[in-house]
Amino acid sequence: MAFPEFGHAFKSQYFSLLDPEVTLVNHGSFGTTPTCVVEKQKQLCEDAERYPDKYLTDEVEVLYKRQIRLLADYLKLDWRNLALVTNATVGVNTVLRSIPWNFSKDKVLIHSTGYEACGNTVKFLSEYFNLQYDVIDLTYPIEDEKVLEAFEDKLSTGEYRLCLFDMISSMPGVQLPYQDLIKLCQKYNTLSLLDGAHAAGQVDLQFLDELQPDFMTTNLHKWLSVPKSCALLYVNRKHHATIQTMPISWNFSAEACRAIENPQTVAEIEHNDLLMHNKFFFVGTISYSTYLCIEEALKFRQSICGGEERIRRYQWELQDAAVKAVTLALGSGSRLLQNSTNTLTTPGLFNVSLPLDAKYLSAQQKLSTDFHRFRRFKARCDVLTRSKKAYAPFYFHGDELWIRFSAQIFNEVEDYVLAAKIVKAIIYENLDEELRSEL
Amino acid sequence: MAFPEFGHAFKSQYFSLLDPEVTLVNHGSFGTTPTCVVEKQKQLCEDAERYPDKYLTDEVEVLYKRQIRLLADYLKLDWRNLALVTNATVGVNTVLRSIPWNFSKDKVLIHSTGYEACGNTVKFLSEYFNLQYDVIDLTYPIEDEKVLEAFEDKLSTGEYRLCLFDMISSMPGVQLPYQDLIKLCQKYNTLSLLDGAHAAGQVDLQFLDELQPDFMTTNLHKWLSVPKSCALLYVNRKHHATIQTMPISWNFSAEACRAIENPQTVAEIEHNDLLMHNKFFFVGTISYSTYLCIEEALKFRQSICGGEERIRRYQWELQDAAVKAVTLALGSGSRLLQNSTNTLTTPGLFNVSLPLDAKYLSAQQKLSTDFHRFRRFKARCDVLTRSKKAYAPFYFHGDELWIRFSAQIFNEVEDYVLAAKIVKAIIYENLDEELRSEL
Repeated sequence: MAFPEFGHAFKSQYFSLLDPEVTLVNHGSFGTTPTCVVEKQKQLCEDAERYPDKYLTDEVEVLYKRQIRLLADYLKLDWRNLALVTNATVGVNTVLRSIPWNFSKDKVLIHSTGYEACGNTVKFLSEYFNLQYDVIDLTYPIEDEKVLEAFEDKLSTGEYRLCLFDMISSMPGVQLPYQDLIKLCQKYNTLSLLDGAHAAGQVDLQFLDELQPDFMTTNLHKWLSVPKSCALLYVNRKHHATIQTMPISWNFSAEACRAIENPQTVAEIEHNDLLMHNKFFFVGTISYSTYLCIEEALKFRQSICGGEERIRRYQWELQDAAVKAVTLALGSGSRLLQNSTNTLTTPGLFNVSLPLDAKYLSAQQKLSTDFHRFRRFKARCDVLTRSKKAYAPFYFHGDELWIRFSAQIFNEVEDYVLAAKIVKAIIYENLDEELRSEL
Repeated sequence: MAFPEFGHAFKSQYFSLLDPEVTLVNHGSFGTTPTCVVEKQKQLCEDAERYPDKYLTDEVEVLYKRQIRLLADYLKLDWRNLALVTNATVGVNTVLRSIPWNFSKDKVLIHSTGYEACGNTVKFLSEYFNLQYDVIDLTYPIEDEKVLEAFEDKLSTGEYRLCLFDMISSMPGVQLPYQDLIKLCQKYNTLSLLDGAHAAGQVDLQFLDELQPDFMTTNLHKWLSVPKSCALLYVNRKHHATIQTMPISWNFSAEACRAIENPQTVAEIEHNDLLMHNKFFFVGTISYSTYLCIEEALKFRQSICGGEERIRRYQWELQDAAVKAVTLALGSGSRLLQNSTNTLTTPGLFNVSLPLDAKYLSAQQKLSTDFHRFRRFKARCDVLTRSKKAYAPFYFHGDELWIRFSAQIFNEVEDYVLAAKIVKAIIYENLDEELRSEL
């Protein structure tokens, strides 16, 4: 069976809602949704209104369960460990805020490149309730073994109840050795919470049932073609009873929280199997119009795109060509953010450095050390790149300026060249402005 | 200017998505959305996909702010105290889970007729972190002064840090003397958290800025014509710095949390004025397709319906006629759930008793004392009433069986007669079944 070619023609046909004038090379921030899936979403907005009593009481449970089962099949995971939440930050919050912390002694481990919203959740628990935490500093490019050493140094102290780490960080957009990190957590008896915001639709997730970390969450609206916003929460079986929905809702009760020890009868086994389902399928009146698009999104990825393998193959090939073209466009000294084992990049994310002239050194130093100055600078640049319709996020990291690009099935190499030139020109203009303001 | 008549013709024209075969007399559980507002929602699903970078970074903040301002104007409230959340349970959770509790001594007061999901949040905090709580038992019908006495008995002990109470309870669907309850909380130095799930679109909310309770939340998808799900969170100015979004997100920082004491400059005053806005407008990637329908919903209520006054007048008149017809249909002894000052009913909600034959006494006793038995019984009945397309919720309360009805602008008196007869017949059939199972 022949599947349609990916690229610009594919974009016009299957992502027809995207502004055709926009060069979209930042899929990573918010995801993009195929038109057929948005059509389904619109239909679901109407479905909710026909007979709200019946829809929300009888129908959505069945439909929710169907999405979970289809997703479990597609990702090759045990459905009993899965629940839907709004986004990965909600997933991380759901876990962090339903662990019965002993605030007088518990300590959490995070890393400096972790997603800010999730790190903030730890900081909130620290500021409001005195949960302790440490931060591992990571500077890229870095070898996986160095990442693991840094985590083991801390974990081996035995001080930590939980370790929160990214599977694929946002900024820099790089992959962490998450499977080995799970094993390290297990070795040192520390709960593992994986922020896989960028995971589903980029990397395989079967490791979850094999390695059995404690918790993982992954957006489905980012790389898996579901509309904003929809995410998956994986909870290890041993925590099904403990983890509660956010908000706490109807389904919270001592009974619903409790798993039956040594279940014997079919009913007892089913009670345990359904703990996650019974808690999460209805957490108050919400719109199910994104959750119930999962089926259509998976159909798109299988029937139209030809499956995850074919998608990733296109992304890798495109990324290879794009890196060559972008480093050329960004000028001598520009390089891909990569380590010696080539494990930092993922099919959809790569970071390329923009080398700066020596004359910008003082401005660069101020920007990379003064967070507020950088934020104002970045905001000015970003408004301009968005108005030029070729936005890609940039950041200072390890004394260099990096631009993060996303590779998606509707992109072609020329997208990256165009975006790289626009972003470079705008950054230079604004650096010149910084220099002038220093005079 | 002549506005269209309310009733069945209005329903066909403005609520055309509702299944015409359904007699919808349970607006109270989930709300209903006018077709023009759903059309807007569908448009918004598409808008989010044109240029996600620009939409979620530049545009939604402006659009969110616009909804808040329009809503503040419409409800005659200070916009600075307002934020949007998904539903009232999320509103209650947002407050209860960002108060920096002293778990070793803080105590919360709730009431037995409060919304179960919100009561569960208190119970969760108790079970997981040892927050203490007491429950005031309320049995209806009850005089407002008795409600106030019951609360004052407890509050006057000075034991409570916070009191959570409904403005309009769900089951029974009755109004509490919430303005006096706020004053009682203030008298005894207790934080007041009002669950106004059923408030916006039924009762005026100006009392918020006059009495200045600590916190209030109200669904907008229930009675204010916004699609599921969307709610308002009111936070008293003195708590703007403390209350954090749920999930905790990008916008949590020591800086964002802190209000400037004695603000002098325009920038300082603006910083304080914008605390709620800056925290709540973006709490991670979400669909704004319900929040951004507020403008269209208010336009519908003003331009098509003729405003809140006209809506409520229809509801009250309809309710008066419906109570007469329903009590007649339910049989001798049937009565409206009301107190001597007629303050229990609201424009949209009324409860009528279904008198049961003496032969059902034993079954009734079992059902009203055995929660699980009642839940199974109710589930059986409810599936049947929904399949007969005339659902209204019923419950045992104070030794009587009550049916809750909702009065909405698309209803006519015959809807209630039809629904009452169907619900009555199904309850009787299932009570007979209970009797047979006892033999």
